[in-house]
Amino acid sequence: MSAVDRRWRSLLFVPASRPDLAAKAPRSEPDAVVLDLEDAVPAHAKDEARAGLTAVRAELPSGLSVCVRVNPPGTEWFEADVAALPADLAAVVVPKVETVGQLDRLEHLLGDRPVVAGLETVRGVVDARLLLQGPVVGCYFGAEDYVADLGGVRTPDNAEVAHARASVAMAARLGGVPALDMVTLDFGDAERFVLEARQARALGYSGKLCIHPAQVGLANEAFLPSAEELDWARRLLAAFADAGGATIAFEGLMVDEVVAARARAVLATAGDD
Amino acid sequence: MSAVDRRWRSLLFVPASRPDLAAKAPRSEPDAVVLDLEDAVPAHAKDEARAGLTAVRAELPSGLSVCVRVNPPGTEWFEADVAALPADLAAVVVPKVETVGQLDRLEHLLGDRPVVAGLETVRGVVDARLLLQGPVVGCYFGAEDYVADLGGVRTPDNAEVAHARASVAMAARLGGVPALDMVTLDFGDAERFVLEARQARALGYSGKLCIHPAQVGLANEAFLPSAEELDWARRLLAAFADAGGATIAFEGLMVDEVVAARARAVLATAGDD
Amino acid sequence: MSAVDRRWRSLLFVPASRPDLAAKAPRSEPDAVVLDLEDAVPAHAKDEARAGLTAVRAELPSGLSVCVRVNPPGTEWFEADVAALPADLAAVVVPKVETVGQLDRLEHLLGDRPVVAGLETVRGVVDARLLLQGPVVGCYFGAEDYVADLGGVRTPDNAEVAHARASVAMAARLGGVPALDMVTLDFGDAERFVLEARQARALGYSGKLCIHPAQVGLANEAFLPSAEELDWARRLLAAFADAGGATIAFEGLMVDEVVAARARAVLATAGDD
Repeated sequence: MSAVDRRWRSLLFVPASRPDLAAKAPRSEPDAVVLDLEDAVPAHAKDEARAGLTAVRAELPSGLSVCVRVNPPGTEWFEADVAALPADLAAVVVPKVETVGQLDRLEHLLGDRPVVAGLETVRGVVDARLLLQGPVVGCYFGAEDYVADLGGVRTPDNAEVAHARASVAMAARLGGVPALDMVTLDFGDAERFVLEARQARALGYSGKLCIHPAQVGLANEAFLPSAEELDWARRLLAAFADAGGATIAFEGLMVDEVVAARARAVLATAGDD
Repeated sequence: MSAVDRRWRSLLFVPASRPDLAAKAPRSEPDAVVLDLEDAVPAHAKDEARAGLTAVRAELPSGLSVCVRVNPPGTEWFEADVAALPADLAAVVVPKVETVGQLDRLEHLLGDRPVVAGLETVRGVVDARLLLQGPVVGCYFGAEDYVADLGGVRTPDNAEVAHARASVAMAARLGGVPALDMVTLDFGDAERFVLEARQARALGYSGKLCIHPAQVGLANEAFLPSAEELDWARRLLAAFADAGGATIAFEGLMVDEVVAARARAVLATAGDD
Repeated sequence: MSAVDRRWRSLLFVPASRPDLAAKAPRSEPDAVVLDLEDAVPAHAKDEARAGLTAVRAELPSGLSVCVRVNPPGTEWFEADVAALPADLAAVVVPKVETVGQLDRLEHLLGDRPVVAGLETVRGVVDARLLLQGPVVGCYFGAEDYVADLGGVRTPDNAEVAHARASVAMAARLGGVPALDMVTLDFGDAERFVLEARQARALGYSGKLCIHPAQVGLANEAFLPSAEELDWARRLLAAFADAGGATIAFEGLMVDEVVAARARAVLATAGDD
């Protein structure tokens, strides 16, 4: 399973310095696991975490999509991180991508390894359209880093990231790659996670970064159509077919080819077409 | 009446395959009627609808602004649609415009016929600033197609289209053309229609696409200043004039030339200046 | 104190034609005072206001940051305004900046005087990234002028400016200059002012334009971290240090280096690092 084969709904991050947590990561059934060398690993522990990467990967099922998040290009750790990457990875997650020059350098260093690019600086977000190309097969929007770079403040209603969050999804569509939504730090607040996942799905995101196993199941469910949506889509398409494809009024909506296409997309997302 | 003579508040779409509906369209007093060859006409009925266009147009009052929406550039129907356009049209509505190359081709095919461009793909929205030129005299934002292209989900609060909807209005201003807001599919929900129309007017839209005659009157009213707004504007300008144009406190607002200009704009929109 | 030395939280505008108000301006302790030749001064009073500028400036403390807002480039008053600027200014506020050509002209006319650029037209907002360079050391978002130029309507929830307001803060970050948020015209509505200031701070704005002395204290407070934020940041950093920089659960949040960096930024903003 590679990053371009399918849409990921849940990417579970675990500190690369915690083999115990990594070993347990598959239990929650994430679409992919990310062994994190960046924010989850303090500076004094980076060398040890890097040295253990291949062993940690080897402990995980070979059929599982596993990624490594390296430290950002330009940091003192980046090149050593890249040199230590295990062979059996679905993708390399590269945080704080913001220039085309970095992409060129990534391609040089990583060869044909697929990259998931973190868009989490103001420049990375604004220039996202230029960055989702070449080795990049997916991206994520990192709200915490973005707002820190912006000089703003994170708030519960996410209004301060609305513009950036929408922009990243739009750029991902233009680049033809899936986008993953920001983390929800309040790992015990399932309601908030699900609300954000639904917003993200509406915006075109295919999944969400998870920083706790309890979030994985929520993401896996929230990024698929609900039973109600599936039922609505089936009924609508039946009525539209009965009308021979002519515009009809259906349960209060004026339904034409566009709305029918939307219903077909709902079924396709669920693998039910 | 041409698309550039005035701002359209209501564009009523009727399937070009339904002469009966087209004949009734003027009753609700839309600013323009659009005979739709695209989404409202199933594939098997497109030839017949196209063949009947000139007759349907001829049945409508010659003083009425009538447009035809053709199928998107690049589809199998597009060129035949263009070849069958009646002479007496206010504009040709072209859906899913997204490249400058399409515009060049449109100009080649349509000569000096004015075009209303549908911005309803991610690329069309993102590149809107480049597209509202040449033959384009107006545009609309198509939310259903846009979200389908984005891979998102339509929701009642329209949060997933907020970025695109604002972008299109801004690009329209830069291109010097009016913008029409998305359809409201829930044709029986007048409250929702009026709410969306007010939001759209605030964002700079001049009107709204209508897919049911009951929406036309709502649009015609919602896109003009209310009696309260007109009254406020007149009182404010009187007070500002009394002060000789100096900054004054007026009903809780600090009023200077900017606010006075806004009040004048309200009166001008209502034809009351 | 110059515009580049620090972040301004409050810029108090007073009509340049009102020496009495200017003299009282320091009382509310704004971070800067702007003597306004533009919207606050009617056409018939501009010559007299301009002629009195140097005297008005001289009446204000020399240690106070004082700016003058000239009329927009291209107006009949602009060049005379520039010629009459007092020597002792922190910056020249130039409204309705929207082209790089204007910037070149500004630099030619103003030499090395720092400029605070008003982004308050659709073009100025859309092209903000190109405009925050050269002599520009700060900018503000002008919502009233922006919406007038857009052809929209101002509403209490500010939805019609959400896109532009976020864009300006993002461009300011890219240009490396502080951004000041729009005025709140309802000068008696402290609750609204504080709400807008908090939103603005979250979006990355460093302060707010004030059109009444009562707004200055509100801005000065709202653009600094609250006591609760400071306390949260100190506790979080203590816990994170105790864990040796490893990821921890802290009061319901999963805390790693990113969140710790945010906490450090809160303390730094308060001058408490």
